[in-house]
Amino acid sequence: MKICRIDGPVPRMAVLDERGVHRLPDFHWGDPSIVPAGDPMPLDEAKLLAPVTPGKIVAVGRNYAEHAKELGNEVPSEPILFLKPPSSLLAPGGAIEMPAASSRVDFEGELAIVIGRRAKNVDAARWREFVFGFTCANDVTARDLQKKDVQFTRGKSFDTFCPLGPWIETDLDPSDLAIRTRVNGESKQDGRTSQMVFQPAALIAFISSIMTLEPGDVILTGTPSGIGPLADGDTVEVEIDGIGTLRNHARRS
Amino acid sequence: MKICRIDGPVPRMAVLDERGVHRLPDFHWGDPSIVPAGDPMPLDEAKLLAPVTPGKIVAVGRNYAEHAKELGNEVPSEPILFLKPPSSLLAPGGAIEMPAASSRVDFEGELAIVIGRRAKNVDAARWREFVFGFTCANDVTARDLQKKDVQFTRGKSFDTFCPLGPWIETDLDPSDLAIRTRVNGESKQDGRTSQMVFQPAALIAFISSIMTLEPGDVILTGTPSGIGPLADGDTVEVEIDGIGTLRNHARRS
Repeated sequence: MKICRIDGPVPRMAVLDERGVHRLPDFHWGDPSIVPAGDPMPLDEAKLLAPVTPGKIVAVGRNYAEHAKELGNEVPSEPILFLKPPSSLLAPGGAIEMPAASSRVDFEGELAIVIGRRAKNVDAARWREFVFGFTCANDVTARDLQKKDVQFTRGKSFDTFCPLGPWIETDLDPSDLAIRTRVNGESKQDGRTSQMVFQPAALIAFISSIMTLEPGDVILTGTPSGIGPLADGDTVEVEIDGIGTLRNHARRS
Repeated sequence: MKICRIDGPVPRMAVLDERGVHRLPDFHWGDPSIVPAGDPMPLDEAKLLAPVTPGKIVAVGRNYAEHAKELGNEVPSEPILFLKPPSSLLAPGGAIEMPAASSRVDFEGELAIVIGRRAKNVDAARWREFVFGFTCANDVTARDLQKKDVQFTRGKSFDTFCPLGPWIETDLDPSDLAIRTRVNGESKQDGRTSQMVFQPAALIAFISSIMTLEPGDVILTGTPSGIGPLADGDTVEVEIDGIGTLRNHARRS
């Protein structure tokens, strides 16, 4: 099932099928019941938002060995965590605003996990019970500021630096999906989620041993090799098998 | 004015004066109007919560020169930012749960700024217009995990690692306040906010040039020198002139 969030006087959660977009007036993250109401709207008339407004976005660094290598880093023995602020979220189709403070803004295509149930000290074997679904993310990074600060926070926290969407796929096995990033149609990243150093089960067990995960929280699972810079006007697409394509463009003001 | 949040079937914002705690049923962070209703409750009958549930907690590393030095670090040329998750919040009086994953959990007493108005690209000279008030925070840190990961996130993100309170003081000049941390009554940190490398005006200008700050967001302004470890059963107090004392205890389960 594909769950999206559509713009309007009040943003609404909705379910997407071959007939279009059906509003879900009773959807709550604490109890995400899927009861459509009213007539469907054609998908091309709906303005999609980031499909969730997470309380926190937990991200994992160096979770693909080839990507760790391309930036000259070791593969970590435990997941390296960082946080992106909710203010960095960007809707599908929205503009990644490249700040004047950075001369190198990179794309990083990633599989995002959306939490469905409060999760604390989760047994890795039961990880799937706590997951609502999966979507695409772009962990946009001001590479120069990331290097300067050592701490990843500033370089990854600018407004618009977390494109998310286009929707959440609830029925998906994420263990071996193709994940691809294209810039202006040209292939840049071409990996598989099976290459993750720490798989979703291990990530949810690890993260939930530190911080309570709440429904709607998002985990970004790391990026494959092939990251690179964006230029003014570029179109960047993150495509994951079984989910869809998250498309945004870059803008330097 | 002292604004607090009290526990109950529904947590309520309230204002505290010499008569006690007065509920504020119409308080919203987007428009924080202070209209008390009903009879006051004696302060000692109110169970205080963290005075705000921020969308994000932005923290600043190495913002007192003596503290940077005591951990062997340089004073940074720009603020070093990191984020703590909202799930790390702890109420005044609550127990700091020291996780098995860490053998050294430190206190860090800090002045916290609570944002009152949406803030983006704020002119430093106008910083005060965007601030609702100030409170005390303890930026609890698993020092061993912070060093191991290099990224601060894991070591500073455990549940209960952000004690905040006891209330927000809205009328305060934060430029030269005594800030003290005591463990079991013994003085550990004894600084002044005038020793900050980057003052609140500079922090709000800097942070809001990166990420939009929303009403209720919290900025932790860094810790003076004197940080040190907590042991099971310790009582830790962060006292700031003109605000009050945030008291918690540490527990190893």
